[in-house]
Amino acid sequence: MYLFETHTRVRYAETDQMGYVYYGNYATYYEVARVEAFRALGFPYRDLEAQGIMMPVLEMHTRYHQPARYDDLLTLKLSIKTRPSVRIVFDYEILNEAQSLLNTGQTTLVFVQKDKNKILRCPEALLQKLAPYFVSES
Amino acid sequence: MYLFETHTRVRYAETDQMGYVYYGNYATYYEVARVEAFRALGFPYRDLEAQGIMMPVLEMHTRYHQPARYDDLLTLKLSIKTRPSVRIVFDYEILNEAQSLLNTGQTTLVFVQKDKNKILRCPEALLQKLAPYFVSES
Amino acid sequence: MYLFETHTRVRYAETDQMGYVYYGNYATYYEVARVEAFRALGFPYRDLEAQGIMMPVLEMHTRYHQPARYDDLLTLKLSIKTRPSVRIVFDYEILNEAQSLLNTGQTTLVFVQKDKNKILRCPEALLQKLAPYFVSES
Amino acid sequence: MYLFETHTRVRYAETDQMGYVYYGNYATYYEVARVEAFRALGFPYRDLEAQGIMMPVLEMHTRYHQPARYDDLLTLKLSIKTRPSVRIVFDYEILNEAQSLLNTGQTTLVFVQKDKNKILRCPEALLQKLAPYFVSES
Repeated sequence: MYLFETHTRVRYAETDQMGYVYYGNYATYYEVARVEAFRALGFPYRDLEAQGIMMPVLEMHTRYHQPARYDDLLTLKLSIKTRPSVRIVFDYEILNEAQSLLNTGQTTLVFVQKDKNKILRCPEALLQKLAPYFVSES
Repeated sequence: MYLFETHTRVRYAETDQMGYVYYGNYATYYEVARVEAFRALGFPYRDLEAQGIMMPVLEMHTRYHQPARYDDLLTLKLSIKTRPSVRIVFDYEILNEAQSLLNTGQTTLVFVQKDKNKILRCPEALLQKLAPYFVSES
Repeated sequence: MYLFETHTRVRYAETDQMGYVYYGNYATYYEVARVEAFRALGFPYRDLEAQGIMMPVLEMHTRYHQPARYDDLLTLKLSIKTRPSVRIVFDYEILNEAQSLLNTGQTTLVFVQKDKNKILRCPEALLQKLAPYFVSES
Repeated sequence: MYLFETHTRVRYAETDQMGYVYYGNYATYYEVARVEAFRALGFPYRDLEAQGIMMPVLEMHTRYHQPARYDDLLTLKLSIKTRPSVRIVFDYEILNEAQSLLNTGQTTLVFVQKDKNKILRCPEALLQKLAPYFVSES
C-alpha cells in the first residue's frame, strides 16, 4: 500500500452560505492530494500530460462526515491500496486540525493517450515508482 | 417515483485544460437539478433555508461515462425513487444534445435545523408535494 | 453601440459564507453574457475556437454595488460601445429581480491565433455582424 | 508601505480549456494573499469575522500580462500602500517560478458590522498592527 499526506487550507471561495465547504469542492482537494503524491513519487502529473497521457476520472465516491469550514488547515491523506493496471484507485481521508475525520472518498482514474483518445495501461515508469509499496503482492 | 428534467449550458469556467468539464463541477449540475426540481414542486429551497432548515449532502456517487464539453447544452434528469424520510436520495443522469449519456450520479441529503444543528425528518409540506408520485407504495 | 441582455440564476456553489456571491464569480457571469451575445449575433464563440482563434482577457474592472444572493435571477446587460479592432471591450451591468444594480464591470479581450500564439485583428465575420450597430461612426 | 509575499500552486480545477488559469480565478489568489498577510500580521481574518466584522470587496481591477498555467508555483506579492481608513486597498503582483510577471491587480475592501450591515472604520487593532509600516506618513 502506498500512503501519502499533504495539507491545504480552506479558502473563502470554497465556502458556501451554509458556512461549510461546498460539497463539490472536495473533488479539488482530492486532486491536490493526487498531484502532490505523484510529485513526491518523482512522477509529476504535469510531465505525464506533456508526454501526451491524460488521467480522466471514471468514478468518484464521497462521504461527508463533518463539514470543513473556512480557514481550516486540512490534512489530506491519500492511499493506493492495489497495484494499478488499466485503472488506478485512490482513497482519501480529510481531517481538520483537531484530527476530526471530515470526509472520506475514492476516485478511479484511467490512463488515456491524448492524441488517439485510447485507454492505456499504467505507465511502466509509474509502476516502478510504486513497486516498493506492493512487494507483498507479487 | 418523482421525475424532473432541466437544462444548463457548460461554461468556459467549468472546463479544464483537458478540454472537458472538470470532474468536481458535476456536483454543481446536480445542485441545479435539485433546486429547479424543488422550485417546480412549489417548494423553493430558498424558502426552506429562510425557515431555518438546511440540506447538507451526506454522500455522493458519480460515474463519468463521457466528458461534457464547453458550450454543451446539458439535459439534467433527476429522480427521487423512494419516499424521503430522514434522508432524501436523488439520482441524476446528464446527457448532451446528441442524447449521449455523459454522467450518472446519486446524492443523499439530510434535513438539519440550522440553529440547533439537529437532524430533522423530511418536512411535512415537502412530503405532501411528493405524495402523488409515491401512491403505489402506501 | 451593441446591446444585449440575458439571465442567469445564482447557484449555491457561487455563494460564500458571507451569504453573498463570491466576488470572483462575477467574471463567470460576464463570460455567460459574452457567450450568449456572440450566439445571438450568429457568431458562436465555440466556432471561433474551432477555427483556432482564442479570446483571452487582457483586463477586467469590477465594482460591487450590492451583493447578489443565492437563487437571485440576475439580468446580465452587456454592451459593446466602440467598434472592435485589435481589442474588444465589453461593459456589463448586473441587476437582480427588483431591478437593483448589483454590479458593473468591463473586460478587454484580444483575438489570438492559437497555433502561432499571435494577436490578430477582430475577424471580418464578427465585424460584419456588428456593423449595423456602429453605422454612425463611419 | 506594508509588503507581504506568499505562494500557491495552480490546481487543475483552476485551468480552462485554453490551458490557462481561468481569468476569474485570480480573485481567489488575491484572497489567499490577503488572508495570509492578515495571519502574518497576527490579525487572522477568521477572528475578525468571529467578532462580527466582514470585509466585502468594493472594487477590483485586474491586468492579465501572461497566462498562469497548470502546476505553476505562483508567488503572490501583496502591498498596502496607504494607511487604511474606511477603505483598505491591496495591490497584487503574481509571478511564476521564472519570475515572469503574470498578473497585477488591486482590490478595495470595506469593513462591515455584520448584524447592522453598517460600514465601519478600520478596526483599531489592525491599525496598530500596520502602524510600523506607515510611520513616515504621520
